[in-house]
Amino acid sequence: MIELEEALEIILSQVKLVSSEKVDILSSLSRTLAEDVYADFDIPGFDRAAMDGYAVLSKDTNSASKKKPVILEVIANVPAGYSTEKVVKNGRAVRIMTGAPMPKGADAVVMVEDTEKEEEKVKIFRKVTCQKNVSFAGEDVKKGELILSQGSLVRPAEVAMLASLGKENVLVKIKPRVAIISTGDELVEVGRTLQKGEIYDSNSYALFSQVLSSGGEPYRLGIARDKRENLLARIKEGLSYQLLLLSGGVSVGDYDLVTDALKKAGVQMLFWKVAVKPGKPTFFGVRKGTLVFGLPGYPVSSMVNFENLVRPAIFSMLGRDDWQRIRVKAILEKAVSSRGRRKKIIRAKLVKEGDKYLAVPATSQQSSVLKSMVWADSFLILPKEVERIEKGEEVFLELLQ
Amino acid sequence: MIELEEALEIILSQVKLVSSEKVDILSSLSRTLAEDVYADFDIPGFDRAAMDGYAVLSKDTNSASKKKPVILEVIANVPAGYSTEKVVKNGRAVRIMTGAPMPKGADAVVMVEDTEKEEEKVKIFRKVTCQKNVSFAGEDVKKGELILSQGSLVRPAEVAMLASLGKENVLVKIKPRVAIISTGDELVEVGRTLQKGEIYDSNSYALFSQVLSSGGEPYRLGIARDKRENLLARIKEGLSYQLLLLSGGVSVGDYDLVTDALKKAGVQMLFWKVAVKPGKPTFFGVRKGTLVFGLPGYPVSSMVNFENLVRPAIFSMLGRDDWQRIRVKAILEKAVSSRGRRKKIIRAKLVKEGDKYLAVPATSQQSSVLKSMVWADSFLILPKEVERIEKGEEVFLELLQ
Repeated sequence: MIELEEALEIILSQVKLVSSEKVDILSSLSRTLAEDVYADFDIPGFDRAAMDGYAVLSKDTNSASKKKPVILEVIANVPAGYSTEKVVKNGRAVRIMTGAPMPKGADAVVMVEDTEKEEEKVKIFRKVTCQKNVSFAGEDVKKGELILSQGSLVRPAEVAMLASLGKENVLVKIKPRVAIISTGDELVEVGRTLQKGEIYDSNSYALFSQVLSSGGEPYRLGIARDKRENLLARIKEGLSYQLLLLSGGVSVGDYDLVTDALKKAGVQMLFWKVAVKPGKPTFFGVRKGTLVFGLPGYPVSSMVNFENLVRPAIFSMLGRDDWQRIRVKAILEKAVSSRGRRKKIIRAKLVKEGDKYLAVPATSQQSSVLKSMVWADSFLILPKEVERIEKGEEVFLELLQ
Repeated sequence: MIELEEALEIILSQVKLVSSEKVDILSSLSRTLAEDVYADFDIPGFDRAAMDGYAVLSKDTNSASKKKPVILEVIANVPAGYSTEKVVKNGRAVRIMTGAPMPKGADAVVMVEDTEKEEEKVKIFRKVTCQKNVSFAGEDVKKGELILSQGSLVRPAEVAMLASLGKENVLVKIKPRVAIISTGDELVEVGRTLQKGEIYDSNSYALFSQVLSSGGEPYRLGIARDKRENLLARIKEGLSYQLLLLSGGVSVGDYDLVTDALKKAGVQMLFWKVAVKPGKPTFFGVRKGTLVFGLPGYPVSSMVNFENLVRPAIFSMLGRDDWQRIRVKAILEKAVSSRGRRKKIIRAKLVKEGDKYLAVPATSQQSSVLKSMVWADSFLILPKEVERIEKGEEVFLELLQ
């Protein structure tokens, strides 16, 4: 039995980066960048008005006041998207809109609120200082600057930035292809009728969705019966993917069956059993670059170990390293305890109460109770040396992604 | 000019719930439930072994010890998915696997680790109490129980729960259809060459991605030129959607143009200008159930107001009320200040340092600097009465979704 941290280290040591593909930037949301993106030009590419108003020589406005406005001649009108060749000299101004290029000669913009138009002239009621209300070329982005780095997640701001840089396409990591197999003769496919002793397979649905939410491309290979040949055939199929997730069949009684099948299929075991509750009977191995996880059959154990071990593996295949969950301080609403021999992952919910957060553990912490995962939005982690935390104590909840 | 909270209240008062559609549960991830889901049966549907081992009468094991095992006759072997009609009586046991139905008569399971098989018999080395290692029918879910509520976001746990309940399909809210128009003669579509005074349209890309990430279905209607007819035609097209987002053209200078066009198109204005920085020049109106937002043209202002006003509107159309951002305590890495007349939204990043978090504000807080949104993963919100927060003080960062 190894510690969770050690298990993760072994897994990450086996990860190979996936390759990349070019996609339209509108399709790049939630993907992972596979290239460093540099700016080919300044943004904006020119000095421009930061306000609607009048481009002026700032010294012309030195004496301006509400009572004694300065009067300037308006020699042009420049909406955004247009420009003028006219030059602003003493006594002159150019009507200008936010985003329009500054005309030559002008060094500041008087806000329209501080002016009054009068035919071909404008009254200026307020002094401006040099450079006031002007935004300069390269203010956002400088030509040659590294703007986005490979391995970053593409969020709305990154999509907008790519557009702003004039990029139609961007290189992103290919989604790792993940095969999912449920094992167990008690499992029935949704849509069929349950017979005595049977339950619906839910693990492959949880894993399918968890793979999607971590940036992988999931494939359900169905339910493998607890027969050697059937299991072996499914495993062989699954080994053509980059990741293979089995759930069930790795507890003591079934262990031989699944490991035999994995061994026959050429999978090299790197660990079995992790010191975590729930989720102890977890297998990890590799074959020709395919990572193979044997997750426990209990629905909560399978989901929790996905979060702790498989999500970081998928992120790492994508070149991401941001799988650490955000930790939020909260007041424990109910005492929690553990027998203390294994790290314990308690399913909990962050509940806002006035200005603070409560950490409310799910009522049942049994690994067969899927309802606890429906309740939870976070994990409260008890290190193995901690046996109990009392109600009212401050704890950290780790938010599920 | 109204406060942000008031603006949000006005918007929410205009929201109409969208209708619903049936989808396959594997396609329901990240959608919003449109039905309450009850359990049609207990899960599990039968009492079952919670461990691999032997189903016994617990009192038979009372005298069992490592040195003096109790010996029982093994009358059947029940793997998961199977059952036996045999009855466990005094002196007898049934070999049983995790998840298999408990045989009649037996009231506990001895873990396989505490036994030793001997032909047709088994040695029991440890006493079990009544009900030990048995999980009971309805342990996870009880028949008739309300399991999932409409308005909830479907996450992996909900997909798994639906499978576990035997549901192939589920009713979810239709994604609100959102039209996006950028306005401004300075804007150029990505892929074209920039002329003097032009920049690439990035707002419609940001909004497209923000709509996607909040559960809507975005449609880019392109760039409207600052000509009355062109703008009016686009707006009319946009009004056939459930939500219309315009960006640009709502600052003072252009205000008449856009509001004229909106008025001509029959849009009733409910507010213009919100006391928030960035994002002041924001318009909101309605026409026949379509919500119309006129967002500022500066990329940061547009994105920030989407988060503050449009995301809650979309969530609310879906029947969700969980748009409040999670707040995380962090130590301010650099002083921040505000002129204090409007609520200020500072773009910041949560940076883990050892056991605590730092709040690192983006270097530039100008609304034209999109790079600040690329930097940020959270907002630090300065109420209008707060003019300055010093380095080293404890603040709350609100995490972007």
